[in-house]
Order: sequence, then structure tokens, then C-alpha cells
Amino acid sequence: MGINVMRLRNIKGAREEMLVNPFVVQKPEDFKGSFCENIFGNTQPLHIEIGMGKGQFITQLAAKNPNINYLGIEKYSSVLLRGIEKQEQLQLANLRFLRADAQGLADILAPGEVRRIYLNFSDPWPKDRHAKRRLTSQSFLSLYDRLLSPGDLVEFKTDNESLFDFSLESARACGWDILMQTRDLHHSEYCDGNILTEYEERFSAQGNPIFKMIISHGNG
Amino acid sequence: MGINVMRLRNIKGAREEMLVNPFVVQKPEDFKGSFCENIFGNTQPLHIEIGMGKGQFITQLAAKNPNINYLGIEKYSSVLLRGIEKQEQLQLANLRFLRADAQGLADILAPGEVRRIYLNFSDPWPKDRHAKRRLTSQSFLSLYDRLLSPGDLVEFKTDNESLFDFSLESARACGWDILMQTRDLHHSEYCDGNILTEYEERFSAQGNPIFKMIISHGNG
Repeated sequence: MGINVMRLRNIKGAREEMLVNPFVVQKPEDFKGSFCENIFGNTQPLHIEIGMGKGQFITQLAAKNPNINYLGIEKYSSVLLRGIEKQEQLQLANLRFLRADAQGLADILAPGEVRRIYLNFSDPWPKDRHAKRRLTSQSFLSLYDRLLSPGDLVEFKTDNESLFDFSLESARACGWDILMQTRDLHHSEYCDGNILTEYEERFSAQGNPIFKMIISHGNG
Repeated sequence: MGINVMRLRNIKGAREEMLVNPFVVQKPEDFKGSFCENIFGNTQPLHIEIGMGKGQFITQLAAKNPNINYLGIEKYSSVLLRGIEKQEQLQLANLRFLRADAQGLADILAPGEVRRIYLNFSDPWPKDRHAKRRLTSQSFLSLYDRLLSPGDLVEFKTDNESLFDFSLESARACGWDILMQTRDLHHSEYCDGNILTEYEERFSAQGNPIFKMIISHGNG
């Protein structure tokens, strides 16, 4: 995906677009603790995707579930722009975007303000010295602990087996419950209702397995 | 289980015990909409088990997850009494019981007041004309829709394959997402962290498979 991201990252004006587009939340820290009331004008549950990429997954989820509010978070403006384009067609009332780093989310969202977190095809950061940057590292899991309330879920998909193993270990080490896991999502009983990301479509068309786990922090 | 239930149903004074025991919620309809504040003195998420039987499952869950409030609901006083005995030993601050029929729950708990529902080894009501009494019938699923908010879970275990098939069908017909399902819980990857009911212990010791599904009403 590297080359593609590099290309998109250079789309002219992407950063400027983030500053004015009505679907992109500006100054999110102003709404901490009452995000849904301020941004969506209601108190529906808030589900977020960290690293939404081009947004196919969260856009389809939002279209399917109008009674849930969705916030797609992405670090790279030029990738996020693709999601904004989709939303400009659909104008879903329950979908907004945020350009932010995952590390900063505790400054933007109050404890317990999020009801579900989706992580899809996160960067595997294969080198050991970068393990902390993986979105399922123990330090990120404790961030999610703060954002969610007890019993809430993190759903994680990847095509990278090492990252999947790392993630399971990391979840167990932090005392999360593994509600489900599969090493071949598309040929399992869980394929039903699975919403594909752009990357997942391409990758599974090549016959590669997709890994998935759903974890819950019961005792966080 | 029939004979056992009959025996317990006749324990002397069980009904009277329900009226005075401090762990049994009295006049629950008085707390509708602010159940946790009134009963637990906090705003932790509320998880309920409908048909808790002798209470081993919900008692162990409550001990494991002090940051979640648990309400065990049971129709038969004499079975419930066994749960009360466990709780009298443990005195868990986050566990209460209720003697009630599932049908009446909408009068006791406000829309969205519950964050998870557990159903374990519910009565299969094998005759077609009793299908509506099954706790996973479409009419019960729409009751759960009202009690939960969008995205919340129902977890269901059974040893009865016909009831399991009926439940999957019923969930799909009502538009729930199947987050996981297994036809042999104890020999699956999900055995990890599984808390057994009394019945499950006995039944699986005989080598019989346990079925489980977790469903979520995304668009309810």
C-alpha cells in the first residue's frame, strides 16, 4: 500500500480541504465529553474507526446503522479525502471524519465516550523496535480502555498473521476477553454481514486469508 | 432439569425470602430509567442474565468484572434462592437479583438501560405452538432491542441444537448481526474465559457439545 499512500499524500490541497469540509470535525478537543451532542445533535452511541483509510468500511457501516454515530479517524489527509468524497455523495447524518493521530485521542474523547472501536488492516510495524506503534500494542489497548466503558468492544481485522498473533497476545496480557477470533474470516461462519475495506477486497481476491478478532475489556 | 426445578420450587419459604432479602430488588418498576443509580449507587454499565437459574454464571462474572453491574433475573423463587446463597457468601457490590418474568422487563427497565443480555440454557419449548415462549423468538428479540441500545450484545448458550438453529434464524430474520457462533464451544478457540453454568458443567462432562452465539442489533 506504500506507493499508493505516497501518491495520495501529495494530492494538491488535501490538507486545506480538511480545514473547511463540513464532514471533518474541526477543533475536536472543544467537544470532549459531549462529542455526539455537539457534532451529531443526538446521544446515539459513538463507534470509531482508527485508521479509516479511504473510508469504504465506515461509510457502509454508517449507511447500514443510522442509529449509531460513526467517526472515521485518519492520519493522512490525502487518504481521508477519498472518504470525504464518498460521504459527499451520500450525506449520511451519522458520519463524520477526523484528521488525527491515534495517540492524541484521549485529548479529544472523554473516558467512556466511545462504544466500539474498529481497527482494520493497521500498519504491522514489523520491526521489534516499532512494536509500540502497532495499534494493538498494550499501550494502545490501555488507551482504548479509557475511551470505552467496561464491556465495550474492539473489532480488529488484518491480513498479517504476525500482527494477529501479536494482537491476541497483547489482548490476553491486558486481561481482555477474546469474544471471537478466526484465521480465515472469508471462509468462516462469520463472513455473513462482513463489510470489506478497499484493501481487504483486493487482498482476499488474491486468495489470502483475513484474520479477525473481537475483544472486550470486561474488567478494565 | 424438570424434576430438579419442581423440587426446588417447593423449598419452604423461598417466596417469602424474596420479599426481604437485601440482594433481591423490590418494586423494580420504581427505578425504571435510573436503575443503576438507585440500586448500585453508580452509573456503571448494566448487564443482565435472563433465566439465571442457580446463579453460578452471573456470580462468577460479577466477581470478575467489578466495573460492570449485574442483574440476575429468574422466574422461580426456589432456584433463585440458590443464587442468593452464593451472593450471601460473596457480598458482591455489583450483583443483584430480580424475581420476574422476561415478558415484563419493559416495565422495569427503560429503553437503552441495559448494555448486555445473557441467555444460558433457556427452556427450548420444543413444541411448535410454544415457539413464542422461547427466549430467542422474534418477539423476545424485539423486547431486547428496546432494552439495549444500538450495537449492544446478546450472548446465548445452549445444548439444544434445534433451539440454536431456531435462534440463528430468528436473529437473522430480525436483522441482527451474528458476531460469533460455534457448535462446539468447549472445543473451539472461544473456550478461553468461558464461564460455565451449573447445567453446562454437568452436560458437557457427558461429552455433549455446547452451542454459542453472540449477536448485536446494529440497526435496531
